[in-house]
Amino acid sequence: MNIGIDMMGGDFAPLEAVKGIGLYLSGHNIPAELTLIGNKNQLESLLAEHNISLDHITITHSEEIIGMHEHPTKALKEKQKSSISIGFHLLNTGKMDAFISAGNTGAMLVGALFTIKALDGVIRPTISSIIPKAEGGTGLLLDVGLNADCKPEQLNQFAIMGSVYAKYILGINNPKVGLINVGEEEGKGNLLAQATYPLLKANKHINFIGNIEGRDVLLDKADVMVCEGFTGNIILKLAESLYEISNEKKVKEAYFERFNFENYGGTPVLGVAKPVIIGHGISGAKAFMNMIHLAQLMLEKDLMTKMKEELA
Amino acid sequence: MNIGIDMMGGDFAPLEAVKGIGLYLSGHNIPAELTLIGNKNQLESLLAEHNISLDHITITHSEEIIGMHEHPTKALKEKQKSSISIGFHLLNTGKMDAFISAGNTGAMLVGALFTIKALDGVIRPTISSIIPKAEGGTGLLLDVGLNADCKPEQLNQFAIMGSVYAKYILGINNPKVGLINVGEEEGKGNLLAQATYPLLKANKHINFIGNIEGRDVLLDKADVMVCEGFTGNIILKLAESLYEISNEKKVKEAYFERFNFENYGGTPVLGVAKPVIIGHGISGAKAFMNMIHLAQLMLEKDLMTKMKEELA
Repeated sequence: MNIGIDMMGGDFAPLEAVKGIGLYLSGHNIPAELTLIGNKNQLESLLAEHNISLDHITITHSEEIIGMHEHPTKALKEKQKSSISIGFHLLNTGKMDAFISAGNTGAMLVGALFTIKALDGVIRPTISSIIPKAEGGTGLLLDVGLNADCKPEQLNQFAIMGSVYAKYILGINNPKVGLINVGEEEGKGNLLAQATYPLLKANKHINFIGNIEGRDVLLDKADVMVCEGFTGNIILKLAESLYEISNEKKVKEAYFERFNFENYGGTPVLGVAKPVIIGHGISGAKAFMNMIHLAQLMLEKDLMTKMKEELA
Repeated sequence: MNIGIDMMGGDFAPLEAVKGIGLYLSGHNIPAELTLIGNKNQLESLLAEHNISLDHITITHSEEIIGMHEHPTKALKEKQKSSISIGFHLLNTGKMDAFISAGNTGAMLVGALFTIKALDGVIRPTISSIIPKAEGGTGLLLDVGLNADCKPEQLNQFAIMGSVYAKYILGINNPKVGLINVGEEEGKGNLLAQATYPLLKANKHINFIGNIEGRDVLLDKADVMVCEGFTGNIILKLAESLYEISNEKKVKEAYFERFNFENYGGTPVLGVAKPVIIGHGISGAKAFMNMIHLAQLMLEKDLMTKMKEELA
C-alpha cells in the first residue's frame, strides 16, 4: 500500500505535512509506504530535522507548486511538474494507491475527475463532510459543493456512496439515510426532493428513513444526509462558522469545538476509482496525520470495490 | 387602524392571546383598535379576569376552529365560521387593516394568497425570518419555505421586498442585500444563483453587495439574505435548533438565546396587499404582543404602498 502526499499544498507546507508524517509513522507498527511529492532538498532536511526515519518513505521531487488561488484547469495543464500534477500521474499509473493534498482544492477536484475518473456507473463523483451530532455521534453530509445542480439519480447515488462510507469508514452499522427537505412528509419539497424521495424509498442498498429537516441536521435522526451541493455547501459553511462564533464568544462547550473541521483531516472525493483526499488549506500536522489514516483505512477496507458493488 | 387577531389559533389559545393583548394595551397611550375573533363568551370572561378594558376592543364571535394539523384548503372551504376564515373575510372587506394568527400556518398562507391576493406585479409572495447576527444586529432571510422552487425574477423581488422591510420595520438604513451562494465570485453557484446575480446587480432599488456564503449568514456581511425557499427553510430550521441545542447543553450565551424565535412574534407574509402575520404555534403572550406591534408598525409605515412603489 503506497500513499502519496502533496508536501507543497496548504498554507503551512511543507512543515506541517512533515510533522504529520512524523505523527503518523510514530503511531503505527506497520505503516503504509509513503510517497512524498515536493522539493527534495527541503524535504530531506526537514525530515532529518524532525528525526523521521526514511524506512517507509520515498521522496519524489517536484519543481513547481500550484498556488491556492490559481485557476485549476489552467494550472494543471501548464504546471506539469507541480506536486499535484505529479501526484495524479503517479496515482493514475499505479505507482501510488491514494493521493492526499491540502493544496488547491479546484486542482485536486479537476485531477480526481479527469485524471482518475469516476467509478463505473457513477454519474458524478461527490464530496462529503462529517457533521458532528449534538448527541455525540457523527453524521455524513453530501454533496457539499461539487454538484450545485443535481438530478434525482445523482442524489440516489450519493445515498449509496455515503452509506458505504458511513459503514466502513465511520463504523456506523446500517446507517440511516435521510433526504434533506423542508418537511417530513413524502411529497414535500422542491421538485428535486419530490422526485428523489421515491428513488430513495425504492433503493434496496440503503436504509432510507425519509425526509429530515434543517432542525434534524445536528441531531441523531439520520447518519447519512443527502442533498444537492448548493444546500449542502451552505449547511457546511454555516456549521463551520459555529466553531468560530463560539470561539469568539468564548463559549466553552465541547460540542461546538467539534465544529473545528481541522480535526477531521480532509474530505475524500467519493465515486472516483482511487482514494483522493482533499485537506483544508489550513491543515496542520494532526490534519495530515488524519488524512493518511483515512487513506489507509479506505485502502484496507477496499472501499472503492465496495462502492462499485453497491452501485451496480 | 384596526388590527384583527385570531384568538383561537396557537397551542395556548385563547389565554396567551388575551394576555398578549393586555401587555399591548398597557404599553400604549394610543393603541390601535383591535378586533378579537373567537369564542365570545370565553373571551369576555378571560378579558374580565385579566382586567383588560374593552375601550379599544371589538369581539367578533367565531364558532369553529381550524386545527393545527388540518388540511389548509379543505379546512378553509369547509369551516367558513372558523376564526381564520372570518379573519380573512373581515380583512378582505376592509373591516380590519391587518390580521394576526398563531394558528394553522398553511391555512394562513392559503388565506393570504387567495383571499387577500398579491400586490400588483408580485409573482409570488414570500415569508421571511429574522436572523440574529453574531455581532449584535439583525438580518432578514427570505424566502424561508413558501417557495421551494424559484425563478431568478422571484429572488429579485424578494430582494426588493426584503429591503423595504429591513428599512422601515427593522430600521436598517440602506440595507445590504446578499445572494446566498456557494462562493463569493460572480458566476459561482447553481443555475438559479448564476442567473439571479446579474438581476440583483442591475437592480437600482437595492444595495446589492454580491454573493454571501453559509459562513456569512450569522455574520454582519448582509442585512437582507436572499435565496429560494428550500435553502432558506433549511437554514432557518438549523438556526432554530441552535437555541434548543445550547439550552440542552446548558450553554449560557446571550447570542444563542436570540435563536429562540418565540421572541420575534411572528413572520409577515410579504408581497400581499395587506399585513398578514403568522405566529408560531407555541406563541406566548409576548409573541402576541410583538405581533400586534409589528402589524401596527407595518400599517403606520404604510409598508405595502412602499413595497408597491419599489416593485414598480
